[in-house]
Amino acid sequence: MVKSYNTRLKNICLNKNSRLCIGLDFDLDTMINPSVKSISSLESFIVDVIDATVEICPVYKPNFAFYEKYGSKGFKILEKIVSHIDGKSIVIADAKRGDIGNTSKMYAQSIFDLYNFDAVTLSPYMGSDSINPFLYNESKGVYILCLTSNTSSKDFQYKFSEESFLYQDVAKLASTLNEKNNIGLVVGGTNSSKMNSIRNIDSKLSWLVPGIGAQGGDLKNSVIISNKNSIGIINVSRGIIYNGNQSLDDIRLAAESYNMQIKKYL
Amino acid sequence: MVKSYNTRLKNICLNKNSRLCIGLDFDLDTMINPSVKSISSLESFIVDVIDATVEICPVYKPNFAFYEKYGSKGFKILEKIVSHIDGKSIVIADAKRGDIGNTSKMYAQSIFDLYNFDAVTLSPYMGSDSINPFLYNESKGVYILCLTSNTSSKDFQYKFSEESFLYQDVAKLASTLNEKNNIGLVVGGTNSSKMNSIRNIDSKLSWLVPGIGAQGGDLKNSVIISNKNSIGIINVSRGIIYNGNQSLDDIRLAAESYNMQIKKYL
Repeated sequence: MVKSYNTRLKNICLNKNSRLCIGLDFDLDTMINPSVKSISSLESFIVDVIDATVEICPVYKPNFAFYEKYGSKGFKILEKIVSHIDGKSIVIADAKRGDIGNTSKMYAQSIFDLYNFDAVTLSPYMGSDSINPFLYNESKGVYILCLTSNTSSKDFQYKFSEESFLYQDVAKLASTLNEKNNIGLVVGGTNSSKMNSIRNIDSKLSWLVPGIGAQGGDLKNSVIISNKNSIGIINVSRGIIYNGNQSLDDIRLAAESYNMQIKKYL
Repeated sequence: MVKSYNTRLKNICLNKNSRLCIGLDFDLDTMINPSVKSISSLESFIVDVIDATVEICPVYKPNFAFYEKYGSKGFKILEKIVSHIDGKSIVIADAKRGDIGNTSKMYAQSIFDLYNFDAVTLSPYMGSDSINPFLYNESKGVYILCLTSNTSSKDFQYKFSEESFLYQDVAKLASTLNEKNNIGLVVGGTNSSKMNSIRNIDSKLSWLVPGIGAQGGDLKNSVIISNKNSIGIINVSRGIIYNGNQSLDDIRLAAESYNMQIKKYL
C-alpha cells in the first residue's frame, strides 16, 4: 500500500530520531572551503556533505535559486542530489511554485516525476487552483507558505478580516485540501508567538520551519509547537553548511549540534 | 542614458503599434502540428514562430513550467528564445518567483544577467523583501501578481480589510516600490469589473493582462483600462499558438487577428 507523504516523513523522522532539515544552499561565490571552486567540485562536495550527515538528517532541502544560477549544470546537481540520497532521506524542492492549474500540473510533473523530489514548497497567492494539481500522488508532499520567516512577511500575511489573519486563512485552506495527508505548512521560526494559533487550526498538517540559525528564530517554541500531534521539521541552512572552515567535519559537527538542541525539546 | 523598463516597453509598443504579448507555452504532448515531435524540432519551431510574428508582437512570454519539464534541454530553449529575439521585442520570464531576500537576489541574477530576460513575474505573498532584490537594474522589469485570472484568485486575493482588498494592497505596495519606473502588475482579463479600482491606485504602473482567449477574459475593458496613462499588454497563449492546424500561417493569422481586435480599442 502506498504511504502518504506525511506518514513517510513521520517514519523517517522517528527512525533517525531527528527533526533536522538541512538546507543545501551552497553558493560558489561565498564558499569558505578553498577546495570547492567549480561546479563539478561543488557537486562532489554536496555528495560528501550528504554522506557525512545522512544518518542524523531525515530531510534535505535544496533551494532552486542556488542551482538555477548555474543554468543547466545546476539542474544536473539537483538530479544528483535526489539520486544520491536515493530514498534514505526526504528531499524537498524549495521552489515556491504557484501558477494556474494547467501550468501547476506541469510543474508538479517536473518536480515529482522528472526530478523525483519527495515534496515541494508552494506559494498560495493564486489559491486552491494552484495547489490542487500537486496533490495527485499521496506519497508526494507539498508545503504551503503560511507565515514566512522574513521581515516583510507582515506586508500581506498579517492582513486581518472576518476574525482571521491571511496566514490563518491559508492554514484553513491547507487543512481542507489535506484529504490525502500529504500537505504541510511553512511556518517561520521567527514567528513563535503566532504558532499556537496556526497549530490549533489543524493538528495533522506537518510543518517545515525555516528561520532558525542566521535569521534568529525561536528554536524551543518551533520544535515544541510544530511537533504537537504531528511532525515539525526544523530547517537550518547557513548555520550548518557554512559552519567554521566549512570542512566536512565542521558541517557534520554543526548538524549534530543542531540535532541535539532540537531533540532536547522533543 | 539607461531607459527604465516601462519606457523601453512603451517605445517598443508604440513602434510596433501593438500591445500583443504572445505566450510561448508549447507542450510537446499536445502539439497539433505533426512536424514537431522532439525537443530539437520544438526549438526550431519556436524560432520560426518568433520570425513569423515579431513584426507585430512587442512582447513574448514563455512560462517556465513548459520548459522546466524538459530539464536542462528546456532551459537551453529559453536561452535560445532570448538570444533569437535579441532585443527586437521584450521577453518576460513567466516564472512567478518569490522568496526571501538573498534567494530572490540569486533568482534576479539568473533571470536578468544569466538568461538575459527583460522582465519577470513575481508572486507577492512574502512581501517587499522578496520584490526589492529584482529592482536593482532600472532597465529590467517586474510584474507583480495582483489580481490573477484563475477562478481561485478569490481564495485570498479578495480578502478585505481596512477598506481595501488584498489585491489593492498589492497594487499600493507596487506603486510605493516603483521608484525606477520598472514595475508592472499582472491583472487578469477575467476581472474587468475590478480593473478601474486597480488602475486608480497608480496610473503609471504598466499592466500584463492574461486570461484573454481560452479563459474568456473581457478584451475591450482589458485594453482600455490597462492602457489608461500607461502601457497594458494583452497576453494570448493558446488562442494564438494552438490556432487551426498550428502551421506558421495559422499562428501568424491568429496573432494578426488578436492584434487588430486589440488596436480597435486603443
